[in-house]
Amino acid sequence: MTPTAPPAPANAQQAAKAAAEFLQELSSFAQQKGFIWGPAPEIYGGLSGFYDYGPLGKLLKNNVERAIRDTFQVNDFWEVECPTVMQAKVWEASGHLGGFSDPLIVCSKCKANFRVDRLLEELFPGKFVKPENYLAFIEENGVTCPSCQSAFNKEIKKHSLMLRTTVGIDIEAYNRPETATTTYLPFPRYFEFFRKKLPFGVFQIGKAYRNEISPRQFVLRMREFTQAEAQLFIFGDQKSAFTPYERIKDDTLPFWSWKLQEGQLPPAAMTVSDALANGNFKNKAYAYTVWLAYTVFTNAGVPADRIRLRQHAPDEKAFYADDAWDIEVKLNTFGWTEMCGVHDRTTYDLTQHSKFSGKDLSVSDETHKKEIPHILEIAFGVD
Amino acid sequence: MTPTAPPAPANAQQAAKAAAEFLQELSSFAQQKGFIWGPAPEIYGGLSGFYDYGPLGKLLKNNVERAIRDTFQVNDFWEVECPTVMQAKVWEASGHLGGFSDPLIVCSKCKANFRVDRLLEELFPGKFVKPENYLAFIEENGVTCPSCQSAFNKEIKKHSLMLRTTVGIDIEAYNRPETATTTYLPFPRYFEFFRKKLPFGVFQIGKAYRNEISPRQFVLRMREFTQAEAQLFIFGDQKSAFTPYERIKDDTLPFWSWKLQEGQLPPAAMTVSDALANGNFKNKAYAYTVWLAYTVFTNAGVPADRIRLRQHAPDEKAFYADDAWDIEVKLNTFGWTEMCGVHDRTTYDLTQHSKFSGKDLSVSDETHKKEIPHILEIAFGVD
Repeated sequence: MTPTAPPAPANAQQAAKAAAEFLQELSSFAQQKGFIWGPAPEIYGGLSGFYDYGPLGKLLKNNVERAIRDTFQVNDFWEVECPTVMQAKVWEASGHLGGFSDPLIVCSKCKANFRVDRLLEELFPGKFVKPENYLAFIEENGVTCPSCQSAFNKEIKKHSLMLRTTVGIDIEAYNRPETATTTYLPFPRYFEFFRKKLPFGVFQIGKAYRNEISPRQFVLRMREFTQAEAQLFIFGDQKSAFTPYERIKDDTLPFWSWKLQEGQLPPAAMTVSDALANGNFKNKAYAYTVWLAYTVFTNAGVPADRIRLRQHAPDEKAFYADDAWDIEVKLNTFGWTEMCGVHDRTTYDLTQHSKFSGKDLSVSDETHKKEIPHILEIAFGVD
Repeated sequence: MTPTAPPAPANAQQAAKAAAEFLQELSSFAQQKGFIWGPAPEIYGGLSGFYDYGPLGKLLKNNVERAIRDTFQVNDFWEVECPTVMQAKVWEASGHLGGFSDPLIVCSKCKANFRVDRLLEELFPGKFVKPENYLAFIEENGVTCPSCQSAFNKEIKKHSLMLRTTVGIDIEAYNRPETATTTYLPFPRYFEFFRKKLPFGVFQIGKAYRNEISPRQFVLRMREFTQAEAQLFIFGDQKSAFTPYERIKDDTLPFWSWKLQEGQLPPAAMTVSDALANGNFKNKAYAYTVWLAYTVFTNAGVPADRIRLRQHAPDEKAFYADDAWDIEVKLNTFGWTEMCGVHDRTTYDLTQHSKFSGKDLSVSDETHKKEIPHILEIAFGVD
């Protein structure tokens, strides 16, 4: 039985039901045919958020990884592999140890745990409640435990998404929550390897871990997953004179700027150079990285009419991001889904790691005095 | 500067010194040229046993993985990918949680930790001390802390090699110490996928973790490393009638049976069928898996005169292993080094996991009543 897209729904509730049924069908198809099994290990009852790739799923995953690897390599990015476990200090510097958590509420009677934002989203669809108002909102609306209908404890706990471990006898360490931070850290080694010349690009494909409270949506939200992330290290003033841009500037891509989104207009097909001239990008290097992220998807075989490039609105961007675009792909089940993010992270990361490690990460060449390089980043989830 | 092999040594001490110097040179060569950097993350002072693969090292590692993948695939083994984190129960069943530990001793004054077997090996080269005699031996020989020369605590602690973590709110789990156990567990799914017919083969290439007390020898003993392991699932009576054997039985390999080793004789080149006829193997399926392991090395480009197949003596085998051979490769630095083990694990693993999971893992086909399949296993360290 081959899964087909759900029929066009009459209303939102029907749509949600159809999507849930389709997901159920897709998941059972994937399990029967040897793509993905789980949660794994099934004979032990499974651990939510962990899956086995069966023979066909692994072949497919290898193909996706190969498409990503090939696209980066022909565009002169070099692959590296960094540890998946690092000490606490690294994750303090990256901000994950302090801030990377979910809001958790516990039932006063049956002690069941719930992720507050998800719980409220399900009970009050479309209603956005600010984190600082969670307790008041629960009180006002008489929200009780879905399991036993008792009242919740009047406390929102922070549930860290980091998987903690101990290395050696007593060194606090964590399974990495992303590949990216581990890729930044050997920067001084890269700089030597690339003969002390910027810009250069590296990428990493590997495992990352997030201890979600309630993993959901089959393999779309896993606790162990594979990421592919690429970084272009570049001096600030080189961004506007990035020569590989010349090679790709006449390619036409479906740009959906935040202004088009605001005006409820569809994405506009235009050349990279027109998008830059129209002010959609601040510079050539960033325009090139957005093009490169897009190219990974077309090279992996995704039809062009199922891809769009969505710009983040100014109030949506992460605080360290100078510019941010997502690649969205239209899936039959989930509709337009974010599959990749492209961020200009500026000097944020290397500055943080300079501060926390005590190592000066600024570098110089013939034309630049010592300065901290910028990082332009492309981040994918492979599975 | 290209590293060269150390000159032929006059005696054992000189040999050890030359090897150490060569390792130093190799390590510095690898670091300078962008193969391997570390311990990583270097700017944070590093965490022993964790390394970065630079651009050239990662290209090399990808090539090794590709050679392994290709060899298994053309011989009809199917790749799978299983989680790197699993709950405690799995590791109780596999025996890792109880027994997978190093003997640790602590200095009474400076509190430095030492792995007892390594410490004694270094101080008394060639002398074998039984674990139950460690404390007595230390007492008799007045062994003191190498750091501060004080006496040791009179206690040998067990230092677990498992990296513990917590999944969800409170589920005890561990980063896997090997790929193999995780590969056994989806057996019921494999059996469905392969249309309920044995034998079939699967393999996995992935990360494993061991919390060594004092990681050494550059990348030969890491805390995070990549393994490649293949398993042939087979009914006991099928081992002697394994048809792929017919295809490879006339190939000539360098067999070093335990009887040749005992007689201080060199390995003997002979065909697989002669080795079987001479009683070196108990059956065709096991002979085939040893051939397959050997073939991975020749396909990866290792010269045939640097490979030998060494049989474990009867008193050397793991208690669950019906037969065991290693593939040894001659390295310039370390001499003949075990790179791969081939084990007939019989019904041991599936029996254990049946018991601990409560799931019956015996299966039947037209010619077999319900029984637990055997596992023939090939295990490599990729790095």
